[in-house]
Amino acid sequence: MFVLGTGQIAHALDTPQPQTAPGIDIQKVVPEGKLPGKAVPYFIRNGEGERYLVGGLVAGLIARGVDTQELFEAAVLTGGRDANLPLHTHARTHEALLVLDGEVELWLGGGHYLLIRGDFASIPEGTPHAFKMRSHRTRLISWSTGREMGSLYKALGQPYEGYVQPPEVNPEIPRESLKKAEASADVRFESKAPSRSTPQRVSNGTVPDKKVPYVLASGEGQRLVAGSEVFSLVGDQRNSDGKFIVVVSEGPAGDMIPLHYHEKHTETFFCLDGSITMRVNDATVTLAPGDFVHAPARTIHAYQLNSHYTRMVGFLTPGLFESFFRTLGDPYPAYVYPQTPAPFRFDRVLSKLNELDLKLVQPPASKK
Amino acid sequence: MFVLGTGQIAHALDTPQPQTAPGIDIQKVVPEGKLPGKAVPYFIRNGEGERYLVGGLVAGLIARGVDTQELFEAAVLTGGRDANLPLHTHARTHEALLVLDGEVELWLGGGHYLLIRGDFASIPEGTPHAFKMRSHRTRLISWSTGREMGSLYKALGQPYEGYVQPPEVNPEIPRESLKKAEASADVRFESKAPSRSTPQRVSNGTVPDKKVPYVLASGEGQRLVAGSEVFSLVGDQRNSDGKFIVVVSEGPAGDMIPLHYHEKHTETFFCLDGSITMRVNDATVTLAPGDFVHAPARTIHAYQLNSHYTRMVGFLTPGLFESFFRTLGDPYPAYVYPQTPAPFRFDRVLSKLNELDLKLVQPPASKK
Repeated sequence: MFVLGTGQIAHALDTPQPQTAPGIDIQKVVPEGKLPGKAVPYFIRNGEGERYLVGGLVAGLIARGVDTQELFEAAVLTGGRDANLPLHTHARTHEALLVLDGEVELWLGGGHYLLIRGDFASIPEGTPHAFKMRSHRTRLISWSTGREMGSLYKALGQPYEGYVQPPEVNPEIPRESLKKAEASADVRFESKAPSRSTPQRVSNGTVPDKKVPYVLASGEGQRLVAGSEVFSLVGDQRNSDGKFIVVVSEGPAGDMIPLHYHEKHTETFFCLDGSITMRVNDATVTLAPGDFVHAPARTIHAYQLNSHYTRMVGFLTPGLFESFFRTLGDPYPAYVYPQTPAPFRFDRVLSKLNELDLKLVQPPASKK
Repeated sequence: MFVLGTGQIAHALDTPQPQTAPGIDIQKVVPEGKLPGKAVPYFIRNGEGERYLVGGLVAGLIARGVDTQELFEAAVLTGGRDANLPLHTHARTHEALLVLDGEVELWLGGGHYLLIRGDFASIPEGTPHAFKMRSHRTRLISWSTGREMGSLYKALGQPYEGYVQPPEVNPEIPRESLKKAEASADVRFESKAPSRSTPQRVSNGTVPDKKVPYVLASGEGQRLVAGSEVFSLVGDQRNSDGKFIVVVSEGPAGDMIPLHYHEKHTETFFCLDGSITMRVNDATVTLAPGDFVHAPARTIHAYQLNSHYTRMVGFLTPGLFESFFRTLGDPYPAYVYPQTPAPFRFDRVLSKLNELDLKLVQPPASKK
């Protein structure tokens, strides 16, 4: 890994320093969790965001179209047993979700699954799907392409100040709310109920090679190792026609990676376990589980894993940064980070920074 | 809730102030996670503790008999798929466990269960049991009475510096290690393998009224509400002949509770979600998920929940503090903390502080 001395002078390897490029500033950490309303980097604490009560669940929008130049949206859904969204389809929106806590029943295309913490699902446009929460506390994060999903929760529910659902809540979403959502969001609800078959625990460990609906068990994915960190591509460009990739990273405490930015893609960081320190333009923030950072193109950023076991998930759009992971990392058969760090082959990356959409702001120091 | 002004003068209501009672000091937070070796309050970060590699799992001892005056021991077990402990029985030790991540197959008495995050099991002495981890990352915490369990992991495995299991590890524990453990710990391994029946997902919501083996689904328990906090007794004195209780607490961000100590029982705090600030004698520590505090009798302590959803689990021994929760709280049918705080009836407690083993160090200020 790279060691960056505190006093080290920032120096761009291949471009002028974009230290204060126009439109680049990080929103202050606000307890109210306000979203910026424009595509600037920002930080949202666990539970914050623009919240709606939708039937039995709290939908916390942590990225809306207006915050991302309409590239993507993201919401954290929190609910109790029986909270659900009935069977529906998005015509133009590709959705991906990862379970954060509890047990979720998911109907996806012809399948009917049980997902727990860490399990992932990819739901391309045109795929009928529904979910029902099964645990008293269930949480998942949903990412979606474009800008037509945030309005879904707004239309389905009411603005909500709380962070958990009210104790006595009716999980049923009124028919008129479903109609209202169809008028304002990319959604069409099916009149039929999802099947009453027995759901299957997710066991799949294979990422398909094309854009199809699929589920993936926690820890699975196309795994690559670089140094002490393991990157698992749980969704790659083949699964989304290049629109996005989803990467779960895990590792032990380590050094800050080199400060860098991207010209062509937006990156997000959602902490799952442990603690992460991030440099985001001029701000330094520490992420605990559930905390989220949005780093649009041209945001100078870097991260450092602080805990003995730290895990995060990133949604990157468009998906072109997949090449970076495949160039830097080596295929890794195991399911836990190595006890002895693997080679960190940054030399492979240095020769094609432009091609990989990677702009270094500080030069890598010599290896430890 | 109580509001304690920063400048408020500490004042004991019914006893002299034990601000610096003999033997009361808090161990410094050490990155090495050293255990104190005597019964003083201490703080262990997630992943730290005295660690052994036992077959496919890392057993991290966070409380050994020497750290607790032989009242209890606690270990966090981390492993991948197929990590297991074969069928065994403790003759004199009552064990309790709570799953922290992943999916665990548990054989308990005649039952065979699937547990996920938040599910609990009580394993009285004399109960044959075994477990097998099913997820690529699985974690659980195990508490046990007395002082004869720490030596189990020491005998079964080898000292280990890592925080996760090595990528390629054989989950099989050699027969000679099982024999060695039988000679040094309260354990007897069965020669037969656990049943090959299909495990049942834990759905039980009822805490039994006597000491029997049982499992309990996440969020269940005997729930009591006080203010905005919900206390779930997942194990009470009837389940352990009074030896211990296990309490899961959840709530939103709030104020620091009044500083207090106990004469007759030891309390432990293990953070599950969110963030907790604790006063422990003269130290102030902040707990993230996986962090642990041991507060033996005569430790002055208080806590404050910092996040919109904070959850912790406590193992208290002996179990006499059950009366405090039942006196302070009102039975609560729901499964999530209330949006409008319930009455905080500290007046019920004030009239019988001695009986409840509660010594206040600062008087409660007037209510908000």
